[in-house]
Amino acid sequence: MKSFFITTAFLFIGCIVFAQQRPPVISSPDVNADGSVTFRYYSRTAQAVVLKGEFLSAPLPFVKDTSGVWSVTAKDIKPDIYPYSFNVDNVELADPNNTYVFANERFKRSILDVPGKTPLVHSLQNVPHGKISYRYYNSATLGTTRQLLVYTPPGFNTNSKTKYPVLYLIHGGSDTEETWTKVGNANFIADNLIAQSKAVPMIIVMPYGNVRPKPMPDFTKDVINDIIPFIEANYPVYTDSKHRAIAGFSVGGGQTLNIGLTNTDKFAYVSSYAPFTATEEFQKNFANYSPDADKINQQLKLFTISVGTEDFLYEPVKKNIALFEEKKIKLKSYIVPGGHTWMNCKLFLATTLQEIFR
Amino acid sequence: MKSFFITTAFLFIGCIVFAQQRPPVISSPDVNADGSVTFRYYSRTAQAVVLKGEFLSAPLPFVKDTSGVWSVTAKDIKPDIYPYSFNVDNVELADPNNTYVFANERFKRSILDVPGKTPLVHSLQNVPHGKISYRYYNSATLGTTRQLLVYTPPGFNTNSKTKYPVLYLIHGGSDTEETWTKVGNANFIADNLIAQSKAVPMIIVMPYGNVRPKPMPDFTKDVINDIIPFIEANYPVYTDSKHRAIAGFSVGGGQTLNIGLTNTDKFAYVSSYAPFTATEEFQKNFANYSPDADKINQQLKLFTISVGTEDFLYEPVKKNIALFEEKKIKLKSYIVPGGHTWMNCKLFLATTLQEIFR
Repeated sequence: MKSFFITTAFLFIGCIVFAQQRPPVISSPDVNADGSVTFRYYSRTAQAVVLKGEFLSAPLPFVKDTSGVWSVTAKDIKPDIYPYSFNVDNVELADPNNTYVFANERFKRSILDVPGKTPLVHSLQNVPHGKISYRYYNSATLGTTRQLLVYTPPGFNTNSKTKYPVLYLIHGGSDTEETWTKVGNANFIADNLIAQSKAVPMIIVMPYGNVRPKPMPDFTKDVINDIIPFIEANYPVYTDSKHRAIAGFSVGGGQTLNIGLTNTDKFAYVSSYAPFTATEEFQKNFANYSPDADKINQQLKLFTISVGTEDFLYEPVKKNIALFEEKKIKLKSYIVPGGHTWMNCKLFLATTLQEIFR
Repeated sequence: MKSFFITTAFLFIGCIVFAQQRPPVISSPDVNADGSVTFRYYSRTAQAVVLKGEFLSAPLPFVKDTSGVWSVTAKDIKPDIYPYSFNVDNVELADPNNTYVFANERFKRSILDVPGKTPLVHSLQNVPHGKISYRYYNSATLGTTRQLLVYTPPGFNTNSKTKYPVLYLIHGGSDTEETWTKVGNANFIADNLIAQSKAVPMIIVMPYGNVRPKPMPDFTKDVINDIIPFIEANYPVYTDSKHRAIAGFSVGGGQTLNIGLTNTDKFAYVSSYAPFTATEEFQKNFANYSPDADKINQQLKLFTISVGTEDFLYEPVKKNIALFEEKKIKLKSYIVPGGHTWMNCKLFLATTLQEIFR
């Protein structure tokens, strides 16, 4: 009993400090032995608590016990990483007891990782691990110091005589420079594919793509004039187009098309995932697109566009694919099941990592 | 108008995907020119929205406008970094529009950074920056692979002939391995003090201290048997006690005392911030404490305990200080204003960094 009290006191010291009332010890989410997942939330005052998640076809109601602990168990979840949130009396929030938060500027959701019976391509596996480094670069374009994340592969060291190719990987519209690692597990995907020799050791640079008020043109300048020079000054990397790739999701997929296809002398690999292209910059670059297709096809070693058939951008993305095909730009398209989700993003990235720098 | 629509569409694409309703573009928190800070929250259904923050002596009510945007402006905030949250109809949540989230297992709060007129010791300044790397080590003690964060100073490279001293820095009770950087800005504090030659270039290792069900003894083993060997195998560091320091806050402050003072052959610097010591492990180590004070005083180059006079642990910490003084262990105590807060933590760390490895 004494030990129980001590454990309880230990767990909740953070809460004691802030609130006076001591909530019970609860755990959420718990992945159960049968693969179902139990979510919990503590409130004595709430009237209705509902679970929303990208693994659910409809929200699930929680049930309250006499101690004020609400819980619900979701079943038959396909192993994957999913965003979810709680809705408490019409207020949307992240699961207070879950450390893993969706890195985003406009909402706070939590991340559920349902492991597979055999490890998934994005799972932490018993293989050599690369590093994610949080770096700061000076953006002359934007007049500020910005954070970016850099994945270096297992065994990497700064003074290496080995040179590495570089993938520039851009997040979605209201995401941050952390979303590709925190939600997309980009580092584990790379670790696993490199361990299996399915991907070549590479550096992956994850910048912060949101630039206001001119997100598209200013970010293009930031990548070309500030980020690439920063990486090439600080890492042992190749500096020719055949060793540079760019990829991105959603708004970042649009940025990928804008940056990549207007700089085919700099990027030989361009992979766009469910691109959002209803932007002035895309109009400017592609409304009257009259490319020298032969030249571009020679410069690009690979150009892919991926999208899910249930993606709300499916129709515009199909139009983009048609545009490039009509202009005779060689393009590989991946049309897969699923929506505008980070579940699909991970698969798109896993495909790209196996295709580039070969 | 068209441009406004495009910008709006751009900003909210993430939300469109998840929710059907498109909320207005709001920004929160906004630090105003006069140093006041405006917070905003969007809800058409909420009855009452209240701001709670460690810069407030009492919660502040929001006011709703006709478009469903709630706002409140807080004034006279002393420049610092503060945790805060919104309370919406009795539901506590992080600010949905703020990217910066308090890294914690039991609550989700946001982080407000009020800059000073002159840069603070924890601010991003125009100095050379170190790196934070997210690493994975195998814990034989715990039978799992765990994440830890490693700060390396500006100019560091893995193959350096220069060796570095190492500070092991532990978070509070329900915090995570990210709290010292995400809330404590430990990396910027180190960057700034190193730039001014007030601290020597060092490596700072931030492990995840929460181990269940036996947080104290198992974490001690993890540090000694797994974390230190991992660091010493992977970084150019000195391996004698004079180049090893340990520090921590709250539960991590208790762990610091447990680990540091029972391993004075391994750590010559022990700095404990507002330690929580109502634990079995502390009882085991210190209830019948009969140290060889002369030996320990020779081994320890510095032993400090810091606490704020409004800290809820002020009285027990004073008793700890008295215990060590009674046992003739040389100790420097820092009794300062303030509570059990990360505002104080940053100051404690800034002091430690200037004292160790000298």
